Amino acid sequence: MRVLFIGFGSVAKEMARILTHSHLYPRLDFSLKAVGIFTARHGGVEDKNGIDLARVLDNFNKYGGFAADGGGLSCLTPLAAAMTLDYDVLVELSVLSIEGRGEPAASYIRAALARGKSVVSANKGPVAFVYRELKELARENAAEYLFESAVMDGAPVFNLYERCMKGAAVTGFSGILNGTTNFILSQMEIGTPFEEALRQAQDAGIAEADPSMDVDGWDPAAKAAALANVLMGADLTPLDVRREGIRHVTPASAQDALKRGFRLKLICRGWKEDGDIRTGVMVEEIPQNHVFATVSHFGSALRIEADLMHPNIIVQECPDLTDTAFGVIEDLISVESRLSLAR
Amino acid sequence: MRVLFIGFGSVAKEMARILTHSHLYPRLDFSLKAVGIFTARHGGVEDKNGIDLARVLDNFNKYGGFAADGGGLSCLTPLAAAMTLDYDVLVELSVLSIEGRGEPAASYIRAALARGKSVVSANKGPVAFVYRELKELARENAAEYLFESAVMDGAPVFNLYERCMKGAAVTGFSGILNGTTNFILSQMEIGTPFEEALRQAQDAGIAEADPSMDVDGWDPAAKAAALANVLMGADLTPLDVRREGIRHVTPASAQDALKRGFRLKLICRGWKEDGDIRTGVMVEEIPQNHVFATVSHFGSALRIEADLMHPNIIVQECPDLTDTAFGVIEDLISVESRLSLAR
Repeated sequence: MRVLFIGFGSVAKEMARILTHSHLYPRLDFSLKAVGIFTARHGGVEDKNGIDLARVLDNFNKYGGFAADGGGLSCLTPLAAAMTLDYDVLVELSVLSIEGRGEPAASYIRAALARGKSVVSANKGPVAFVYRELKELARENAAEYLFESAVMDGAPVFNLYERCMKGAAVTGFSGILNGTTNFILSQMEIGTPFEEALRQAQDAGIAEADPSMDVDGWDPAAKAAALANVLMGADLTPLDVRREGIRHVTPASAQDALKRGFRLKLICRGWKEDGDIRTGVMVEEIPQNHVFATVSHFGSALRIEADLMHPNIIVQECPDLTDTAFGVIEDLISVESRLSLAR
Repeated sequence: MRVLFIGFGSVAKEMARILTHSHLYPRLDFSLKAVGIFTARHGGVEDKNGIDLARVLDNFNKYGGFAADGGGLSCLTPLAAAMTLDYDVLVELSVLSIEGRGEPAASYIRAALARGKSVVSANKGPVAFVYRELKELARENAAEYLFESAVMDGAPVFNLYERCMKGAAVTGFSGILNGTTNFILSQMEIGTPFEEALRQAQDAGIAEADPSMDVDGWDPAAKAAALANVLMGADLTPLDVRREGIRHVTPASAQDALKRGFRLKLICRGWKEDGDIRTGVMVEEIPQNHVFATVSHFGSALRIEADLMHPNIIVQECPDLTDTAFGVIEDLISVESRLSLAR
């Protein structure tokens, strides 16, 4: 399977590490041929015979960029690569942009789908802003558009809904979906000031580059919109989500809640009201015997309500980059199965 | 899709209720034609033009059995029906038997798979006793063998592993998988004596007919064996599971644990040790900040450990018969998709 990568940040590097060490993973019966890797800031490489991922990884670690020996340097832009190169699947791993309303990622994805090429993306932006359009484009062109890692990293969320809840209609959801704010809130319970807890999250490499994405609730708002769009058939954007951040929380207020038997959690919700689908991101007091109260540090959880089942909750314990990379690989395995069926 | 039912107990009746009210469920775009319904104790009916499920349900509610107007009464045994009737899928809903080592259910399933007919079962017995044989038989005959409802009712477990954890190897699991014992342990924490708590579970219709299946740990042992067989590639039976029941627990010991910050839970485990796969069912003290401590009454939870992801936990809140029936319907929808692809 010939893969075009757009984005070569931490997730792509972890994918490259896993794929170049696949002998360590007994159930990972999977290999791919990278025919292009393009980035916004470091240029790109292409090689229709396959790029040596181990060498690219090594070059990035040594020089912070591509070198001529890991595939032929290319002067294409990422969009031009998506539009013109010969590949089977686009792996889209660029970063979330709220100001860009899902762009430029959405354009990369559009370019691939319009050519009938499947897309695997870890990017919540396009799902949060233009899901309905992309889903329809994929359907029209008989291509897959998968994005398991966009919410809760590799934990099953979107694939769970599509593949394990057939026939059930989702009526609502709630969840802890932003690791940085959950970590900060957990740290404030033991007295750590906000700014120091934020710095710890940044040092751990979990916080978004722009802290506002986390602490003002933009990242969880994007996830709430993405979940409402996919699981509930909504057509919302993060700008439609009733949004509250955690800047007003102090160690004193977190500790006061704890004394009263509650933990402060930033909760994403989707629900139906007067025939509409509403979404919100709010700091809530969660009783200590609730599953959400057991989610500490960078953990996450999602509770799904549906008509034919009692609520199911997915909890992910302390994910890291391996989980995100695994979600992308898992989606690639699904695309490969579909391509081999179609052959 | 022509369906043969074996077993017409509470799960089958709830399925019939859902399917005859499918207009209430907006995502349930699914219908089936029941061509036979056979039971161990109430005889059977067959009609190649389709049995009127609403009428059968009505007759069972009124007379406790089949009546001549719901499909032609048949003198076939369930096994003979599986071996000779013309159908696409067997829905196998007979009860778990430890003494029978998965029989007679396993024979019904074998008969269908050997004819290339897919099987959907809510029965943990065959998965716990002869999974490897049935899986291989299904593969040889290009048929599906699905059993999502065998563990945690309709909550995603087996389908989750097959469809949402592609590429990841499971290294262990732990869970609360028996509602009756979890309910009894919860009730003992508030001082209810064992026998009274058991009677409450029986009144709620959740306890197995033979209380030993629950309180001596046979049902969770069967689930532990089933999970080890499917998720970890083991070839175990419930008799291989290190098994402890809850008869030694008293309200005093449950309350003592609670005072010390723990809840007593009957935990199923699977793990690797010296190259072997081991399983156990044991009463454990669970700290109150652990997800398992939030599982009360008839709830259940499963924590899955794997090589390429941090642990994911599925929690199901207070399932009832609708959840079990939903799991079976969901598997039927999967079989229908596969049949329509093959056409």
